[in-house]
Amino acid sequence: MKTMQDAFHHTLKDIYYAENALTKALPKMASAATGKELKSAFEHHLEETKEQIKLLKSVFKSIDAKPEGEKCDAIEGLIKEGESLMEEASGKALQAGLIGAAQAVEHYEIARYGTLRQWAKELGNDEAHDLLSQILDMEKAANAKLTGIAVSSVNA
Amino acid sequence: MKTMQDAFHHTLKDIYYAENALTKALPKMASAATGKELKSAFEHHLEETKEQIKLLKSVFKSIDAKPEGEKCDAIEGLIKEGESLMEEASGKALQAGLIGAAQAVEHYEIARYGTLRQWAKELGNDEAHDLLSQILDMEKAANAKLTGIAVSSVNA
Repeated sequence: MKTMQDAFHHTLKDIYYAENALTKALPKMASAATGKELKSAFEHHLEETKEQIKLLKSVFKSIDAKPEGEKCDAIEGLIKEGESLMEEASGKALQAGLIGAAQAVEHYEIARYGTLRQWAKELGNDEAHDLLSQILDMEKAANAKLTGIAVSSVNA
Repeated sequence: MKTMQDAFHHTLKDIYYAENALTKALPKMASAATGKELKSAFEHHLEETKEQIKLLKSVFKSIDAKPEGEKCDAIEGLIKEGESLMEEASGKALQAGLIGAAQAVEHYEIARYGTLRQWAKELGNDEAHDLLSQILDMEKAANAKLTGIAVSSVNA
């Protein structure tokens, strides 16, 4: 990796891997969630994640590359943290912890899409910039929704 | 882990481990940074991280617990991602990638401190809430600074 094009392509493969990994992790998190609102948020985000994977395929197309993932250590660590939580926690600690784990994932994605979107701009790839902006907005909305659930469960 | 107290204590140990791990990772990132502004941002954030570790010790004290870390898979993954980048990238891809990797770490921390601060509020631990708010503000400022460096290097 030497150029901005290289960095963009590499990070795109990284987040593509991450989103695909999340399609496997989210159903487990939905199963572990006892609150109706939280369970439904995870289920909804699974559908969104599938939509994001389609949008990422268009980003790959915009740089004439085929959609492929490359192992992303960060998402592996984040998912592993969520899995340990599901093994070790129960009751209120599990529910609060699940929201926290999901928000850590959202924040990771927000950071990555923010970076990718800016690089797309720098590279003059308007199509990728717009697609990545769409995904970034979805991730920010998902994170805000989780904050809302966390706050309302505190007030409950 | 069953109660909110358990979740708070566990996540506190997790972020304490993460901050200590960062005191080892940041000097390597500063060495790899060629831009003066980026190198100085990493050096400054190393000093801030040491300060945050002191603040975290006070948070442990506020719950009558001794400061100790617990292996945090998420930060291990994030750091590993940064290390791969330093091995595989050079030139502009390395500089842009380093900013991106650092912002991913900042976002992880912002998520964790946001969660911990809210839990402190729920637990009625005002002292921990204030200390965690201080750290959260520092992380948000560090992230904003990195965005500024990324944008100015794009415009350069």
